[in-house]
Amino acid sequence: MKRIDMNRRVLLATLAALPTVPALLTTAATVQAQASQLASWNDGPAKQAILDFVRSTTDRASPEFVRPEERIATFDQDGTLWVEHPMYSQMMYCLDRVPVLAAEKPALKDEEPFRTVLSGDREAIAKLTIPDLEKIIVATLTGMTAEEFDAEVKKWLASARHPRWNRLYTELTYQPMQEVMSYLRANGYKTFIVTGFGQDFVRVYSQQIYGIPPEQVVGSALATKYGYGKDGKPILIKEPKLMLNDNDAGKPEGIHLMIGRRPRVAFGNSTGDQQMLEYTGAGGGARLMMLVLHDDTQREYAYGPAQGLPDTKVGTFTQALYDEARKDGWTVISMKNDWKRIFAFD
Amino acid sequence: MKRIDMNRRVLLATLAALPTVPALLTTAATVQAQASQLASWNDGPAKQAILDFVRSTTDRASPEFVRPEERIATFDQDGTLWVEHPMYSQMMYCLDRVPVLAAEKPALKDEEPFRTVLSGDREAIAKLTIPDLEKIIVATLTGMTAEEFDAEVKKWLASARHPRWNRLYTELTYQPMQEVMSYLRANGYKTFIVTGFGQDFVRVYSQQIYGIPPEQVVGSALATKYGYGKDGKPILIKEPKLMLNDNDAGKPEGIHLMIGRRPRVAFGNSTGDQQMLEYTGAGGGARLMMLVLHDDTQREYAYGPAQGLPDTKVGTFTQALYDEARKDGWTVISMKNDWKRIFAFD
Repeated sequence: MKRIDMNRRVLLATLAALPTVPALLTTAATVQAQASQLASWNDGPAKQAILDFVRSTTDRASPEFVRPEERIATFDQDGTLWVEHPMYSQMMYCLDRVPVLAAEKPALKDEEPFRTVLSGDREAIAKLTIPDLEKIIVATLTGMTAEEFDAEVKKWLASARHPRWNRLYTELTYQPMQEVMSYLRANGYKTFIVTGFGQDFVRVYSQQIYGIPPEQVVGSALATKYGYGKDGKPILIKEPKLMLNDNDAGKPEGIHLMIGRRPRVAFGNSTGDQQMLEYTGAGGGARLMMLVLHDDTQREYAYGPAQGLPDTKVGTFTQALYDEARKDGWTVISMKNDWKRIFAFD
Repeated sequence: MKRIDMNRRVLLATLAALPTVPALLTTAATVQAQASQLASWNDGPAKQAILDFVRSTTDRASPEFVRPEERIATFDQDGTLWVEHPMYSQMMYCLDRVPVLAAEKPALKDEEPFRTVLSGDREAIAKLTIPDLEKIIVATLTGMTAEEFDAEVKKWLASARHPRWNRLYTELTYQPMQEVMSYLRANGYKTFIVTGFGQDFVRVYSQQIYGIPPEQVVGSALATKYGYGKDGKPILIKEPKLMLNDNDAGKPEGIHLMIGRRPRVAFGNSTGDQQMLEYTGAGGGARLMMLVLHDDTQREYAYGPAQGLPDTKVGTFTQALYDEARKDGWTVISMKNDWKRIFAFD
């Protein structure tokens, strides 16, 4: 017991004297050991790009060494970290909230687009326009306190299931991407989600599902309004006013607003991520830009005109994006070829 | 050597298995040892409130224990972490930029309020109205890239000096507050600056001066616009459009946007911090709300009608704020009585 106490004291003293844990972990031997964390990746150029980048930016002897405090890695969510088909999960949430809302405000039952949603007619719902969807988003995501919203999302996540796998949405994260995030964190990178969808939504589960705390989630954001409830207690009400549209050019703008530094690493899967990857790449020094290509109908989905596949308007991987990736040295990840397995339950 | 390697491996393995370093550090003995970190505080109710709060929220046996991931502490900057008299340092920066700007755009020399600033007439400058100051802010903080702005601020900070102490502004942080932030961090709290002034400005020096990384600085924010420079490279240009006014009700709103959790700890010094403290206090469980009262003419300044002192319109500590503090159990820190020394160089 004495011996253990000694070690513990040594450990505490050592920790107290150290600036950060990651700095400790960046010896070459450790990096090699951690590379086994990418267990769901097949050997190939994508896996190699990740290993090479981490080695060159964490080895103090490397000319491309990056100081620990500058190790910022950003990840798009839908289609990059988890399934986005047949519809973004937050949009599913909004649609599922419509009946609850209609029970509270019966007048909505006769009002479009709510009537269509309530009809349950899948074909008609699939044809809703962007302004229709925006109306649904505003109606279902605003007018409540921040805490009420959190509680509703938690409840939904605990029961809503994806139609294809009949699993909770939170089970449908890509295991290889979970491994990349862990691997980067083990090498001193701070991981951020930069999502085009609502940051308040993702923040509800980001810690539990990705190990990413709420304050490291950047996303589209509605304003909140500070005020006092009936009991005089301070509350924040979610307002129908867009503060931040975190898509396309909004991604680097959102990164500047919320993180304040240019990323070293950026992962995406669609044209909505293009500017984030461009901005990351323009920073000089070693940078890692990667795009997930959905080309695996068997195990997940295949879509995007870059592969001559149908453009589903969800997570569009265009030919222009593919060309830019080749020109700028971004690495395209083939789900089919680069990923040994897709989900943890595979 | 063998022995050391063994320990090193044990250390690494132990670290890898642990969720966070702070969790390790929260034994009662460690907390006691760390209390000596508050060396610049006199014994008294303010110091005691900090010690009691940390003890009760980090002791697993305490009914008020707070899980490490929820340990969020927010700090106003001007007047709370460093000197705000006779003028906010960022306002000094903006005024100092006017001659540079006028050299680039000579037409400004005949335009108010720039003409007044260029005259160097201190009395006239002190009488500039809020709209005048806003014009100066917009002219000096926008129209350049994010990197150009960073470089300008760095240059200014390296040379601009406070008229009273003839020291760099970055030397004028309050040593007792530096100690509180370190003490909280050593106990697993994540520290954030929540400033009414510009977050881009504070982010330039927050890591070096406070040990707080840019992504943990929340403040008033101008929009940026993503585009491409003459060389085709992606750039972010600072725009004359206010995204976030991080004062008063804007503080809890900014905290929700940027952090996404309610703080456990909030320090401020003026009516601009009132809503942040109210919001923090309304969260239930153990919370620590503290206000710095400037009542020390000898070593710093004394101002604020709460003490029958002149209202300087900078960092106003009103009687109403003082009354709310007493009613809601917030602790008022007397610089004169609670702080053994004010600055590191004292």
